[in-house]
Amino acid sequence: MKLKKLLFFNLLIISTLIAQPQFRNKINIPNILGYKTLKCDFHMHTVFSDGDVWPTYRVEEAWRDGLDAIAFTDHLEYQPHKDYIPSNFNAAYNIAKNFADELGLTLIKGAEITRKMPPGHLNAIFIKDGNELIKDDWKAVVEEVKKQGGIIFWNHPSWISQQPDGIAKWYKEHDWLLQTGILFGLEVYNANVYSKETHQWCIDKKLAVLGNSDVHGPLYFEWAAENVAHRPITLVFAKDSREESIKEALLNRRTVIWYNHQLIGSEKFLKALFDSSISINKKSINAIGRETKNFQITNNSDVEFDLKLITDIPNIQFPKEIKILPNKILNLQIRTTKDDLKIKDKIEVKYLVKNMLTEPDKNLIISFPFEIEIEPKLR
Amino acid sequence: MKLKKLLFFNLLIISTLIAQPQFRNKINIPNILGYKTLKCDFHMHTVFSDGDVWPTYRVEEAWRDGLDAIAFTDHLEYQPHKDYIPSNFNAAYNIAKNFADELGLTLIKGAEITRKMPPGHLNAIFIKDGNELIKDDWKAVVEEVKKQGGIIFWNHPSWISQQPDGIAKWYKEHDWLLQTGILFGLEVYNANVYSKETHQWCIDKKLAVLGNSDVHGPLYFEWAAENVAHRPITLVFAKDSREESIKEALLNRRTVIWYNHQLIGSEKFLKALFDSSISINKKSINAIGRETKNFQITNNSDVEFDLKLITDIPNIQFPKEIKILPNKILNLQIRTTKDDLKIKDKIEVKYLVKNMLTEPDKNLIISFPFEIEIEPKLR
Amino acid sequence: MKLKKLLFFNLLIISTLIAQPQFRNKINIPNILGYKTLKCDFHMHTVFSDGDVWPTYRVEEAWRDGLDAIAFTDHLEYQPHKDYIPSNFNAAYNIAKNFADELGLTLIKGAEITRKMPPGHLNAIFIKDGNELIKDDWKAVVEEVKKQGGIIFWNHPSWISQQPDGIAKWYKEHDWLLQTGILFGLEVYNANVYSKETHQWCIDKKLAVLGNSDVHGPLYFEWAAENVAHRPITLVFAKDSREESIKEALLNRRTVIWYNHQLIGSEKFLKALFDSSISINKKSINAIGRETKNFQITNNSDVEFDLKLITDIPNIQFPKEIKILPNKILNLQIRTTKDDLKIKDKIEVKYLVKNMLTEPDKNLIISFPFEIEIEPKLR
Amino acid sequence: MKLKKLLFFNLLIISTLIAQPQFRNKINIPNILGYKTLKCDFHMHTVFSDGDVWPTYRVEEAWRDGLDAIAFTDHLEYQPHKDYIPSNFNAAYNIAKNFADELGLTLIKGAEITRKMPPGHLNAIFIKDGNELIKDDWKAVVEEVKKQGGIIFWNHPSWISQQPDGIAKWYKEHDWLLQTGILFGLEVYNANVYSKETHQWCIDKKLAVLGNSDVHGPLYFEWAAENVAHRPITLVFAKDSREESIKEALLNRRTVIWYNHQLIGSEKFLKALFDSSISINKKSINAIGRETKNFQITNNSDVEFDLKLITDIPNIQFPKEIKILPNKILNLQIRTTKDDLKIKDKIEVKYLVKNMLTEPDKNLIISFPFEIEIEPKLR
Repeated sequence: MKLKKLLFFNLLIISTLIAQPQFRNKINIPNILGYKTLKCDFHMHTVFSDGDVWPTYRVEEAWRDGLDAIAFTDHLEYQPHKDYIPSNFNAAYNIAKNFADELGLTLIKGAEITRKMPPGHLNAIFIKDGNELIKDDWKAVVEEVKKQGGIIFWNHPSWISQQPDGIAKWYKEHDWLLQTGILFGLEVYNANVYSKETHQWCIDKKLAVLGNSDVHGPLYFEWAAENVAHRPITLVFAKDSREESIKEALLNRRTVIWYNHQLIGSEKFLKALFDSSISINKKSINAIGRETKNFQITNNSDVEFDLKLITDIPNIQFPKEIKILPNKILNLQIRTTKDDLKIKDKIEVKYLVKNMLTEPDKNLIISFPFEIEIEPKLR
Repeated sequence: MKLKKLLFFNLLIISTLIAQPQFRNKINIPNILGYKTLKCDFHMHTVFSDGDVWPTYRVEEAWRDGLDAIAFTDHLEYQPHKDYIPSNFNAAYNIAKNFADELGLTLIKGAEITRKMPPGHLNAIFIKDGNELIKDDWKAVVEEVKKQGGIIFWNHPSWISQQPDGIAKWYKEHDWLLQTGILFGLEVYNANVYSKETHQWCIDKKLAVLGNSDVHGPLYFEWAAENVAHRPITLVFAKDSREESIKEALLNRRTVIWYNHQLIGSEKFLKALFDSSISINKKSINAIGRETKNFQITNNSDVEFDLKLITDIPNIQFPKEIKILPNKILNLQIRTTKDDLKIKDKIEVKYLVKNMLTEPDKNLIISFPFEIEIEPKLR
Repeated sequence: MKLKKLLFFNLLIISTLIAQPQFRNKINIPNILGYKTLKCDFHMHTVFSDGDVWPTYRVEEAWRDGLDAIAFTDHLEYQPHKDYIPSNFNAAYNIAKNFADELGLTLIKGAEITRKMPPGHLNAIFIKDGNELIKDDWKAVVEEVKKQGGIIFWNHPSWISQQPDGIAKWYKEHDWLLQTGILFGLEVYNANVYSKETHQWCIDKKLAVLGNSDVHGPLYFEWAAENVAHRPITLVFAKDSREESIKEALLNRRTVIWYNHQLIGSEKFLKALFDSSISINKKSINAIGRETKNFQITNNSDVEFDLKLITDIPNIQFPKEIKILPNKILNLQIRTTKDDLKIKDKIEVKYLVKNMLTEPDKNLIISFPFEIEIEPKLR
Repeated sequence: MKLKKLLFFNLLIISTLIAQPQFRNKINIPNILGYKTLKCDFHMHTVFSDGDVWPTYRVEEAWRDGLDAIAFTDHLEYQPHKDYIPSNFNAAYNIAKNFADELGLTLIKGAEITRKMPPGHLNAIFIKDGNELIKDDWKAVVEEVKKQGGIIFWNHPSWISQQPDGIAKWYKEHDWLLQTGILFGLEVYNANVYSKETHQWCIDKKLAVLGNSDVHGPLYFEWAAENVAHRPITLVFAKDSREESIKEALLNRRTVIWYNHQLIGSEKFLKALFDSSISINKKSINAIGRETKNFQITNNSDVEFDLKLITDIPNIQFPKEIKILPNKILNLQIRTTKDDLKIKDKIEVKYLVKNMLTEPDKNLIISFPFEIEIEPKLR
């Protein structure tokens, strides 16, 4: 029998036999622009609404996954376990807070305001007392959140149970929310669902892009396994991982979504992430005739980058598609199309980054500079 | 937002992105001796005692893992969540029963009688009403179990919190239990802990060997990954997977433990499992001189078999160690030690199966018959 | 030092440390229509043309991968290693034949007639003496193949080095080849390249579809790793794995290509493979109101099946997309759209199998029959 | 058809489908003591003796595996392919040198002097002309190696084909070799075989420890897969990866073996590797009573470290066994044995590193300093 208090400790002993939950993955994404790159998930459930797990498990799970901060956001108005568990909107946080502190994970108190559309579901985070948020009028709940110093984002605006066509719609209620000053962001990714309209609103209305798991059951997180995605993660660029620093970063919209091999956010952040992750070992290419020349690209991050050539370089064949796997070095080859060329030039080879989205349907463009010197091959 | 009712259904949609929990593994272990080989786990916890998960998750988890039957056994006398969840010893079963029925998994109502040693912890299974088991006197609880038609096994007799030297001890209280007629087995494996004394008692006192997970958190079960063990499983040889058939099999001690690449049980069952799993493609070997001859062993099960040669076959080199990975075909090579031998013989090559234990420190012995015909090599 | 003769034997000893090459995978694809389903690869290279490996390695590799038959097809007219290795078009076969026999793998002698288009590259298999195929006139080579009892297929008709637009073209030379009677098939898949025109020709001209690896370096074959494809395999439906049986099957066009999660071939074979691989646990559904009902689909093969619903069943929601992973059991859920329906009907639910191609852009259609009985829910 | 010249280039296109051989792993082992930590393998074979692969494949394979330098060491006196490939002891190097240069891998010309014991097999590396090494008298071969500027190590002194008891023996021939001044090291690990006597000789005679693959077939190298070992690697601590720098480092015995989760070498290098790989997040522990306190250990390398507690810290329970997986963060817990202790102390907690060997049967000892302040718990 393993009494619950001993669970974490016992796992040390059996670590080689099962899944070694006491190990934390190091998510390798560079810090940028003078900020720490925090890995966060601001939307998840426990048995205190319709989740399947006890609150401490969410903390253990997030610590193992390499996250820096999470928010508990159980439903206020949806309590399917209430025949067995009396409603208490501070319980999950209170149960798990000390454990999170011990592990160095920032735990944020939150709640999901669960209404029909409009306004739909809203997550309030950085609140003080969840039990004070039980009110009939949803606007009164928002006012209470503001009073407690909390801030709000709109969850899954395109959720098919509330928008059967899967298209997010902006209502006057959301204008009201925006005017309160505490609506700071929108869920562009909720679990595995991306909303294009929501993405565009973030740009137009200057709101933070957010990607969250909305996880209800245990989350299996397997970085090692190829093609098994991790949970949606909101990268937050903050001074440090304290609650107030995260809140400051969110209010200033310093976020990027990382999910499904994609990074979604403003050009400034995506460019900085790319430049800090990728390096190239050669800037100049000298060849004779159609000789094949090699250069190597190193990926110093856990992000995969997929590039597509968009400039036509006359007479020289550059790779059309480049997939740079995480933490690997890729060898690439170039050569001219003919044996009798004489070229001495500085060129900019431009690639579109297929998995970096600055706007809906708009990708980051990056450029590699090369000095080329080709001598014709004598026969 | 994923309301809980929809959780399982939604997973169909996102199945390619995360861990595809709607898939059930087929555990490939042959049926033997006219019985079905059921894969069972009779010891696990939910949030209704000190577990981390909601009851339906245990069902989903077991179904995915390929199990046929499980028992919920929350602690009667240890209720660390009681500040948040009022004690109710039928709740877990009632919540999950319909879901188990839909999936075709046999869910057994149980409870863990949680006392200091002696008698220690006892699992009652096939009970009718858990709430009736709350009594001061543990013997009265056992009587109530018997009254309800339940049967009992003794959990982790060597648990270090109750036996600091890690050695199981048999008390007069256990003699009393044995005399009730409802003590049918002992946990030889509890989680990853094997108890040698407990194993010996099963043989001496004619009790069923049991291996159970005693899982508290979510159970990560990864069959594909090499060297990641599955949970301890009690194989039950029963007519079918109905509750009464499992009970009949347990009362008649038709069990084998499968854990940590080991199979533990009586010679009769282990022999039948080996013979139904392993086949060999050649019965006769003809060679000239020191010519190398090949034969192939096929493993038709998910069990790995590790063999060690124990007979000395004069003049012929057989492999000393054979590791037969699950569901693979292994090529083996033999040859004579000299070029000038003439042999015509029927031999029995005996191997000890290192991972099949009929008693503590006693392994199953198996034998491959070969007809050998060696001609000397002419120069 | 490991002398080469001992290599295979030594691997037994070190098997737990490295990649255990002495194990053979069992490819689980059912036998159909009274034939054995042989797994074959008829196109590969060794150091005796431009390959990177010694011939015996190709045999070991194919045996490990679970193949039943392979052909060596080194280039006749392309000998880049000739400064180091004198040309010899029987050497590879002669070196590896005994080893293949010992392992029970059928090794077929072949050669790649390597000419510019037309006729392009042709593989001759079941030949007797490769060195007799060195002739200036390619038609004379074909005549010699015929004389030796060999048969021919046309390799990668769409190869971009010979068809820069990637579109296969049929020349009068191929008409001539067809008239010889020994052209039995076309490579619809060469390595990872599919040719649509070639696929259509197989149907129009009644030729066997072929998928081959054309492997030059060592082939890493990892069945366990999700999303890592195996080599292109030609499934041959033959009486047994002897050379003459394979030849008979090829001459009678009994082949299906398995590659990239796809099966390509005639409706008759694809239907038989699906029906032998997939089973369903319920034929009748009884529900009350919008109750969710479950049924389970079992995949008894190593092939993944991807289904797409193509019939509109009024008032009942069937899954629109079904992905049935290899060797797993999938749970599916259905329910009606309203609570007040009364239905008693026999229905045929039709799915298109996205990864089974009977013709270019034409998929196999399969059908699940259900008896439905729905009672309205009383309030 | 993939002509060989195009093989590497083509793989870019098919990289997502098969094993992506154009990617190089980054082996994460820190540089120490002002030197680069080069990953080297000085013993391997090609088709030019008894290997299974063409020379360029060895280069591609080593580059992918993340190695910095390799030596080709085909047998001089064992040429089993000579019926097909005329002997040429410079061919392998000449064929692969340009390719190695393009990839930035240091390729060293070598040869295996293949004699019966004594002296057994000797690898000469940094030689200039392999064909000049064909001489009857092995001492004449050694003199020729010295003349060419080459240096020598003794391969697998305990090889069972030359020492049937598996115990290495030192002969007067090896004394002669030592006196030549060009014997710089011994293979302590050859493939997966460790020789204890050889290890002791390295210490006694001040020779470099070496671990090499002696690979003959293709080498499957899977860093990601847990428990699948990589090839034996000799870590060389050198100024850079040029031939002369590697030679200087070898002559000065700056090597450590990395294999089978073990590091073998002098205390100085092992200590530096441990200290550069491992960091701990807390130096002081403050607790009240039996409160559990956590600290975290970060492993910044690809090496797994297994620690065993060897100091008895009175009244405080430290973990007895610590397994620190590569590139992970491990959470550990400590607490006192009683509630009423008052401790204020600086302690050194010593662990033996089970997988770091400074001598046969002697492990590196490391120490973590802690400031402890425990207050008794008031009731």
